[in-house]
Amino acid sequence: MSSSDSSRYRDAGVDLEAADAALERIRADVASTANEHVLAQVGAFGGLFALPQVERPVLVASTDGVGTKTRVAAALGGWRGIGRDLVHHCINDIAVQGARPLFFLDYLAASELDPDVVGDLVGGIAEACRAHGVALLGGETAEMPGVYVPGEVDVVGTIVGLVARDAIVDGAAIEPGDVLLGLPSGGLQTNGLSLARAVLDGRYDDPAPTGSGAATVGQAMLAGHPSFYEPIRRLLDEADAHGFAHITGGGIPGNLPRILPAGCGARLDPTAWPEPWIFGRIRELGAVDEDEMRRVFNLGVGMIAVVAPERMRAAQRAVPEAVPIGRVTAGSAIEFVEGSFGAA
Amino acid sequence: MSSSDSSRYRDAGVDLEAADAALERIRADVASTANEHVLAQVGAFGGLFALPQVERPVLVASTDGVGTKTRVAAALGGWRGIGRDLVHHCINDIAVQGARPLFFLDYLAASELDPDVVGDLVGGIAEACRAHGVALLGGETAEMPGVYVPGEVDVVGTIVGLVARDAIVDGAAIEPGDVLLGLPSGGLQTNGLSLARAVLDGRYDDPAPTGSGAATVGQAMLAGHPSFYEPIRRLLDEADAHGFAHITGGGIPGNLPRILPAGCGARLDPTAWPEPWIFGRIRELGAVDEDEMRRVFNLGVGMIAVVAPERMRAAQRAVPEAVPIGRVTAGSAIEFVEGSFGAA
Repeated sequence: MSSSDSSRYRDAGVDLEAADAALERIRADVASTANEHVLAQVGAFGGLFALPQVERPVLVASTDGVGTKTRVAAALGGWRGIGRDLVHHCINDIAVQGARPLFFLDYLAASELDPDVVGDLVGGIAEACRAHGVALLGGETAEMPGVYVPGEVDVVGTIVGLVARDAIVDGAAIEPGDVLLGLPSGGLQTNGLSLARAVLDGRYDDPAPTGSGAATVGQAMLAGHPSFYEPIRRLLDEADAHGFAHITGGGIPGNLPRILPAGCGARLDPTAWPEPWIFGRIRELGAVDEDEMRRVFNLGVGMIAVVAPERMRAAQRAVPEAVPIGRVTAGSAIEFVEGSFGAA
Repeated sequence: MSSSDSSRYRDAGVDLEAADAALERIRADVASTANEHVLAQVGAFGGLFALPQVERPVLVASTDGVGTKTRVAAALGGWRGIGRDLVHHCINDIAVQGARPLFFLDYLAASELDPDVVGDLVGGIAEACRAHGVALLGGETAEMPGVYVPGEVDVVGTIVGLVARDAIVDGAAIEPGDVLLGLPSGGLQTNGLSLARAVLDGRYDDPAPTGSGAATVGQAMLAGHPSFYEPIRRLLDEADAHGFAHITGGGIPGNLPRILPAGCGARLDPTAWPEPWIFGRIRELGAVDEDEMRRVFNLGVGMIAVVAPERMRAAQRAVPEAVPIGRVTAGSAIEFVEGSFGAA
């Protein structure tokens, strides 16, 4: 195709050559995630993955994005972290069911794709995939002028994992009296960014508290979404955990009930875990009431593990950062009662 | 959460209650795609799918969107068709490798989600899934004000399928002299819409030719992306097809080489198949040259099947709509030569 031809299509807002340049840059990153199960990756119509052997195999799959955390990255940079966040979010969503992640597919779209942004995003995705032994099996980039606001990007990921049917974790073993252990989120993860951005607009350059791990408010908003894969495996292996809830959109009230059997509620002690300062800043500057804060944000708890009370010590030995934050109760209410932990 | 709380979050551009209403509407459609393999669908962190037994199972996966066909749907309606297109596009991408589709996940995002649009999209997705015995295993909706242009929507799908390792179709059996059979696309499918829209802007209400199956230019632009799953299965079972190329972005020159072994090219006869009128309209009104037309559009061929010459009759008995459009040649060039078919 001559350059005048390609400029014809570029006039319509789609730059095939820029897309090719980006593709070249990401090829090495994608290839770095291949393992012995990958039979075809980029270039094939579909990626091919030879399934490891397990008894009665069950596939576990989830699709997700990172919400408007992309807008903070668009303003401040940090696309590599967004790539890692996307993979961690997806892995967490299937790890809570006992699955081992196998492969990942991504979708990156914008009005016009900046090859550097694509390279950073895929670089972060590939880095997180490698760290978990996950193959980046396929993906798609799309330039959609008129659909995306210029300069903005959306990123979507799909994870597929594997679990033996007898090893599925679905919370059925949870019963009143079980202990709720919280794993620290370290910040917003990838939820509630629209509200956080509305409140913190114009303050991204404000200094963050000393020792907080971030220099500015904007950097703190981009704090990484942790992978809870290793803690989940350890809590299953060493403390027979009864279930896990990934605290994403909807907060604890929206996510913990997803794994509680009928007849089970929970009482949480909001003083039992340290709340990252960014949430206090949002609460104060936005005059956001507590119910709203709890429904929109994780408030510092990125993952809740449910363990039998007699396994709590084993759980804390296995995962020292796990903090007891409440108990499973009879009923169906999710209550927040200050100072309640230990009283049950 | 009180309504004043939720209006707080709505102020930031995210309407949780509208999202809930949409979710309610799609729940029945999603449930209608469940089969005996589905162990968990909407509501769980990840969908659970018990794998059917095959020898040496290989998973085949692909993620894709429908490009700016969404913009035509946003202007004219027709989201249900967009949902079907998305599923068909994804199924075709793994069917070409011999896979049977198992399950699908979707992602729908906009500045603000219109529950009716979400309902129509998921309705179309679920309809196409049911028609193929595919479970709609999971999905995600996202409202991202500031990322999406108001009124515009992006839709992304991921398909996962299964093939026995010995049944993978990768084109390795293709050799010079093999016949190329074209399956009719019926229109733009889901590619080249940005150029088509740029050329046909302001003409969506122009009448389409009598007997073309569409009343207007806009309707013709929304013509459905066919599923080639059944023809592919028949061509494998009854004509030992050597390979398939799904003609998407990049047209025949961009997609046919993806399955040709080293040392194989192709000569196609562009007069051998009927070109839908919409392509002629774009070519003339846009003064688009032929190389560009071939690189951007399918020009009427939605899928190419490669069969041994002695199996051509069996192939045409199995799939009467398949038209011989060219041959595999020695070399690597993809040539278009008028009147060449039959001369090889």
